Amino acid sequence: MSIVTRRVPEALQAAGLDHYAADYGGSVHELDVELGRAPAPEDLIDLTHGDTRAFTPPPYAEASLRDAVQENTEAYTPYRGSESLRRRLAPRLGALLGRGVDPLGELIITPGTQGGLFAALSALVGRGDVVAIPDPDYFMSERIVAYLGARAVRMPLAVAPDGRLSLAEPGLAAAAEANLLLFSHPNNPTGGVYAAEAIDAIAEYVAAGDRLAIVDQLYCRQLFTGANFRHLAALPGMAERTVTLIGPSKTESMSGYRVGVAVGPPEVVDGMERVLGMASLRTTGYSQQTLRRWMESDADWIAQRAAAHEALRDELLARLRAIEGLTVASPLGSSYVFPDATGTAWGRANPAPRGNALAVALKRAGVLINPGYQFGLGAPAAFRINFSQDAERLVAAVERIGSVLGG
Amino acid sequence: MSIVTRRVPEALQAAGLDHYAADYGGSVHELDVELGRAPAPEDLIDLTHGDTRAFTPPPYAEASLRDAVQENTEAYTPYRGSESLRRRLAPRLGALLGRGVDPLGELIITPGTQGGLFAALSALVGRGDVVAIPDPDYFMSERIVAYLGARAVRMPLAVAPDGRLSLAEPGLAAAAEANLLLFSHPNNPTGGVYAAEAIDAIAEYVAAGDRLAIVDQLYCRQLFTGANFRHLAALPGMAERTVTLIGPSKTESMSGYRVGVAVGPPEVVDGMERVLGMASLRTTGYSQQTLRRWMESDADWIAQRAAAHEALRDELLARLRAIEGLTVASPLGSSYVFPDATGTAWGRANPAPRGNALAVALKRAGVLINPGYQFGLGAPAAFRINFSQDAERLVAAVERIGSVLGG
Repeated sequence: MSIVTRRVPEALQAAGLDHYAADYGGSVHELDVELGRAPAPEDLIDLTHGDTRAFTPPPYAEASLRDAVQENTEAYTPYRGSESLRRRLAPRLGALLGRGVDPLGELIITPGTQGGLFAALSALVGRGDVVAIPDPDYFMSERIVAYLGARAVRMPLAVAPDGRLSLAEPGLAAAAEANLLLFSHPNNPTGGVYAAEAIDAIAEYVAAGDRLAIVDQLYCRQLFTGANFRHLAALPGMAERTVTLIGPSKTESMSGYRVGVAVGPPEVVDGMERVLGMASLRTTGYSQQTLRRWMESDADWIAQRAAAHEALRDELLARLRAIEGLTVASPLGSSYVFPDATGTAWGRANPAPRGNALAVALKRAGVLINPGYQFGLGAPAAFRINFSQDAERLVAAVERIGSVLGG
Repeated sequence: MSIVTRRVPEALQAAGLDHYAADYGGSVHELDVELGRAPAPEDLIDLTHGDTRAFTPPPYAEASLRDAVQENTEAYTPYRGSESLRRRLAPRLGALLGRGVDPLGELIITPGTQGGLFAALSALVGRGDVVAIPDPDYFMSERIVAYLGARAVRMPLAVAPDGRLSLAEPGLAAAAEANLLLFSHPNNPTGGVYAAEAIDAIAEYVAAGDRLAIVDQLYCRQLFTGANFRHLAALPGMAERTVTLIGPSKTESMSGYRVGVAVGPPEVVDGMERVLGMASLRTTGYSQQTLRRWMESDADWIAQRAAAHEALRDELLARLRAIEGLTVASPLGSSYVFPDATGTAWGRANPAPRGNALAVALKRAGVLINPGYQFGLGAPAAFRINFSQDAERLVAAVERIGSVLGG
């Protein structure tokens, strides 16, 4: 019998970001596989995502799910999600985003914010397109753009120590050829929040170039003192040019339900629904209903959760900054920090780090992080921590990190 | 302000199956939109999917979900799904499919069988590929193939009155150029089961041409008297060439949990995991755990459910065949029948029906069905019924159908 010839389709090959192989010592996909196989002690502390037992979901989630299963009327929904649910959510989303939201035309329930990102990009981007993305930004963004046969133009971020973001010169001028702008806000992986003027400049760039924007605002309700968050979709003329992605997977620790929402122009939502129909028909029917009470009179709950993370942030930053030479901006939102080890003893011993050099060393010491290369080209000695963790485990993790970086 | 220029990406445009527009009077996507907008009475009976209140999920589903939410240990799983769950499922799937299943390499948990189909095709098919698909077959199959830039070669099915299937001449010889074979078994929309010799011929075609096969076996556990179902993956040399898709969405009425599984060669499962990672990260974490007890000592439950549907099938067929000129094969499995109205009074009055002519008339009369064009080119006057319904509503639906077709 012949051996089956299995060719990886061109699109999937491109999604591995082969074009970074020379810089990194392997495609991003190859490096991911390598890191996955690297050895680790038994008590590995995983900082690549939050701990949903340290910060549990709000009680309504479980109750709404139980009700949905027992009612059993919405196992099948329209591909874009339950209509009654969209009607409930539209006014709450409108209040959050500062724009009107038509529940029938402008809103779609997605399989997490990731599902929204994939559907939005698939509905808007094709072969030969150019998409502007800050550097660093969410590790899946450039992969999906490459998967769709498009090219990313990365725009280096300027991250102030207090977490305020702007685009470094030449900024948007470097992305004149792009027809779409994609960014996370608060920024993943730095937790930074864009300055008001930066968002205004983005709006001008979008409008002037007849462009569209996709904004991943997954963490836009977990903000810290002084964040002054500005919603792009609220600016004049932006509602019809912006797809905003959001969901309860992070702040509400509801990732296990795999639900999110996207708000955007009706034609884009139509396209997203077609993509979702092919990819998985619809967001999990019963899980959709965990959104029934999402964002309903929860200001106190959100404030408490944000305050708890702000306190954790402060303690974490103090400990990270005690590691000699480690630099880290203070996030203004999210559960992420993105420290840079260039100035540490480890950094001096590894002056041109590539690929997983740091991540493998940290994993061997018992801490799993997201390596800098996943987020762009600009921070080869940086790594992302999700600090939505049990406080003691977080302290233990930083001790291990210090033992690797300290020299 | 300028109007935003929104171009539908080439891939999404292709997924609408524009190339059938001349035959149908519109692309398949345009016809779907048209049917969605067609008027209907308030008490529309929807026969496009099963009624999960008429046939409810097994009790373990709700119990397993509740446990998973309360344990709260698997909100985040590997993209291919919970490892402990895959270890539980592998022996059960191995027994069903008649092949060994490695839980780490050969098994992936998917967002329903649809999610498995999208991931499998995306992992194997790229621009310029050719995929062989019977006609009729599942309405999403050719769309996804076209979305991926590939071309489908349709092979007309021969459906015997007793539901036994074979490929009509020239059969597989017409698909010599294809590098992948995709088919549903039992067949969606006819409910037919392939003759043993037809499956043997498929195995030979796959092996001889160094091809792969994707088999959507969603309904392979809801079989009727005399079905004699043969699993392709069980044949010599086929385990490493076959991706088998299955899940509890239909027989177990668990579509609202959006879970399924795929079993295939490790390299294909690796690719599927990459696609799933981009499309939605993973199958809904808590929902995955509804599979904990799936296929566990459930022979009696399955036999009862199949017998209930076989009885419904017999009653439905008798009523459908009482409509003058309506022809319909008896399904050997699934909850589908695919009657053809060519010989009815309606068919005589509409000798060359196109697009939604019949579907719109039936919808106006209060019955929603899937029109024949969704499944291929061969049956423009046929329509699919899912008969997993409340018995009285099914009778009422057939009366309405008779009123449209009877003349």
